Amino acid sequence: MKEIHVGFLGCGNIGCGVWNLLRDAEERFEQTHGVRFAVRKILVRDVKKERAAQIPREVLTTEAGEVLHDPDIGLVVEFMGGEEPAAHYMMEALRQGKSVVTANKMALSLHWEELMREAKNHHAAIYYEASVCGAIPIISTLNDSLQANRIERMYGIVNGTTNYILSSMSQSGVSYADALKEAQRLGFAEPDPTSDVEGYDAAYKLSILASLAFRCHIPVGSVYREGITRVEASDIAFGQEMGYTLKLLALAKQSAEGIQVRVHPTFIPRLHPLASVSGSFNSVFLSGDACDDMMLYGRGAGSAPTSSAVVSDMLAAARFDSPVYPAVDADRANTAILDNWESAFYIRLSAADRPGVLAHVAACLGERGVSIRYMVQRSETPSARVPIVLITHKAMEKDVRAALDAIAPENALVDNVIRVEE
Amino acid sequence: MKEIHVGFLGCGNIGCGVWNLLRDAEERFEQTHGVRFAVRKILVRDVKKERAAQIPREVLTTEAGEVLHDPDIGLVVEFMGGEEPAAHYMMEALRQGKSVVTANKMALSLHWEELMREAKNHHAAIYYEASVCGAIPIISTLNDSLQANRIERMYGIVNGTTNYILSSMSQSGVSYADALKEAQRLGFAEPDPTSDVEGYDAAYKLSILASLAFRCHIPVGSVYREGITRVEASDIAFGQEMGYTLKLLALAKQSAEGIQVRVHPTFIPRLHPLASVSGSFNSVFLSGDACDDMMLYGRGAGSAPTSSAVVSDMLAAARFDSPVYPAVDADRANTAILDNWESAFYIRLSAADRPGVLAHVAACLGERGVSIRYMVQRSETPSARVPIVLITHKAMEKDVRAALDAIAPENALVDNVIRVEE
Repeated sequence: MKEIHVGFLGCGNIGCGVWNLLRDAEERFEQTHGVRFAVRKILVRDVKKERAAQIPREVLTTEAGEVLHDPDIGLVVEFMGGEEPAAHYMMEALRQGKSVVTANKMALSLHWEELMREAKNHHAAIYYEASVCGAIPIISTLNDSLQANRIERMYGIVNGTTNYILSSMSQSGVSYADALKEAQRLGFAEPDPTSDVEGYDAAYKLSILASLAFRCHIPVGSVYREGITRVEASDIAFGQEMGYTLKLLALAKQSAEGIQVRVHPTFIPRLHPLASVSGSFNSVFLSGDACDDMMLYGRGAGSAPTSSAVVSDMLAAARFDSPVYPAVDADRANTAILDNWESAFYIRLSAADRPGVLAHVAACLGERGVSIRYMVQRSETPSARVPIVLITHKAMEKDVRAALDAIAPENALVDNVIRVEE
Repeated sequence: MKEIHVGFLGCGNIGCGVWNLLRDAEERFEQTHGVRFAVRKILVRDVKKERAAQIPREVLTTEAGEVLHDPDIGLVVEFMGGEEPAAHYMMEALRQGKSVVTANKMALSLHWEELMREAKNHHAAIYYEASVCGAIPIISTLNDSLQANRIERMYGIVNGTTNYILSSMSQSGVSYADALKEAQRLGFAEPDPTSDVEGYDAAYKLSILASLAFRCHIPVGSVYREGITRVEASDIAFGQEMGYTLKLLALAKQSAEGIQVRVHPTFIPRLHPLASVSGSFNSVFLSGDACDDMMLYGRGAGSAPTSSAVVSDMLAAARFDSPVYPAVDADRANTAILDNWESAFYIRLSAADRPGVLAHVAACLGERGVSIRYMVQRSETPSARVPIVLITHKAMEKDVRAALDAIAPENALVDNVIRVEE
């Protein structure tokens, strides 16, 4: 029997969820894994706060040092969330030679290299399955199952809030503002939804996933990021007519030219396996040279699913004597992260309802080599401006941007541009 | 740098695939994992056979002992397929303290307890990710990611051949015989397709998956098994009309009453995530008390995907000094494996076209407590027998069987019975 002495940093919903799972599975883990977890200290802000777990008072502390500098604690589990002080606490734990388990995508992605360096320097392990997509075992799949693969592309629905909002908009045709309000009411969106709806949360997660998939560090800052706040019900409706479903995708690709990492609303074919991932579910689709297409789907958030992933990491930490760090290909150090890429584009314009306007728009696109695959113009009620929707063939992002900039505003205004993946 | 000396048992497509993957990734694994694999001996039937890999002649042998009894070989990878001599060779390798990696669901499932016992007795490791669903990391998900969960139910599409045939029948309305012929022509079905179409292959895989999910050994012999050979195009068409897709499911459930493990054609709602898994793809859907719903999807067969899984197992074998065996819950030893279960049923009958027949059928069902949720009768052309299709509410399997046995043949013949999962 191995007894592992554990310290928690923070004890909100997920911390309490883990406390309860450990208590329920205590005997089983002793029997099946030969491991017993003894939680010795839990750092909290307020020891008197009501919690969703029966935690003895003497375990709680408001002093981080009681967790970080207790030589008796071998495993630190971080539940604080946010960048600081979580990142510095984790680094201190690693420096003390303690293993760290974290569900904190923000601290992990923003301090990836420092955390990995401290871990290696002090021969300590760091586990982070719960930091991306909750219970879905995407981190272990990338680290421990696909080592023989070159991952060519990866598409993730990694943020449940935005997927919930876009699913509502798609199913009932409501506006973004109404869908957000409903998501907030049901607890699927925060009172301040910025991190989710502007794609920051997805960018943190993509930075982690792409760093593992491509075996080189992909900083959060190099992820192109666009949120869902400009999506209108009409965009979703136009897309549906053309056979597309709108998702906030976290997308990573590599090719001879370099690496693309981007988070933005994306039209995907209605029959793509990701199109049916609705509500607050998460999913990652990837394609490797040996494994071919693969998809993982499940709960990306919530106390129980996240706790499930944290406990699997704790068991891994208990099992392995010698830590393994994310593989890094030395020859990837200089791989370019691209700021221009090929994509098809959905473009919605408000055009002046007079002759010559379409010719002007088509000429602006044509001059930059952007060709049109599909166009629909709808003017059911006479008005000065009519909506035109275009889908382009594949073109370079910067050419499309330049073409749209060249459209004279008196002819047409660009209302929205959404990338399309086939 | 750790150098692992490897022996192969067999060297068909997957063996050659692994050889090639190891050669291509040699430098990378040295750099990222600190491991070099040196394949020392490969057991083959014919050393002169043309192979899909450039293997030096001196590595090949026709003597199993040269692999199994070479003290220099620490890791044996089994690619022979079939029950024997593969199972005995693996046991001998484990007795010699060698780690074993296998892609052989048949030998593994039929000799599960002996293999695990030999492994434990000799402190040797056994890895088998490639034995079920090719590249999909379902084994490591069950073993290493979901330890904190009680898995309540699991539905797998684990046989690519039957999924290919049923997908063809669904998409183009062809008969079973024609779909099989086409699958054979394209290499998706064997010249003798028995193991696939009769559900044996799926039963081997379900035995392995359920043993891990439920943490107690589920012998192949306890899996209820029914193949797809009796499925007619009309069954699929009737199902489609009612919103169902037909899949050969490997299904496992546990409840207070006991465990159900069954392989049979199953109607699932068209919108279920598994319904869109078509062609030769595999997928496993499961639901756990902490993780909630989860699904994994990918290539279940083929040289490259299977090789990808074998190589991930080889890296795991190289990494871990102390082997870990599937968790076994001691208090599960006496869990009943049920031979009667609750399900909804699709029933297709040929009924005599005269008054009283429907009343007779309904009475037979009603007397055993089987109630009808939906019924359709179609007699477009006058004939002595008309097809009637029923869907029942949930009922016990044995009650439904008894009810159908009680239907007088002069009134109606039971043409097919297919279980329905909602």
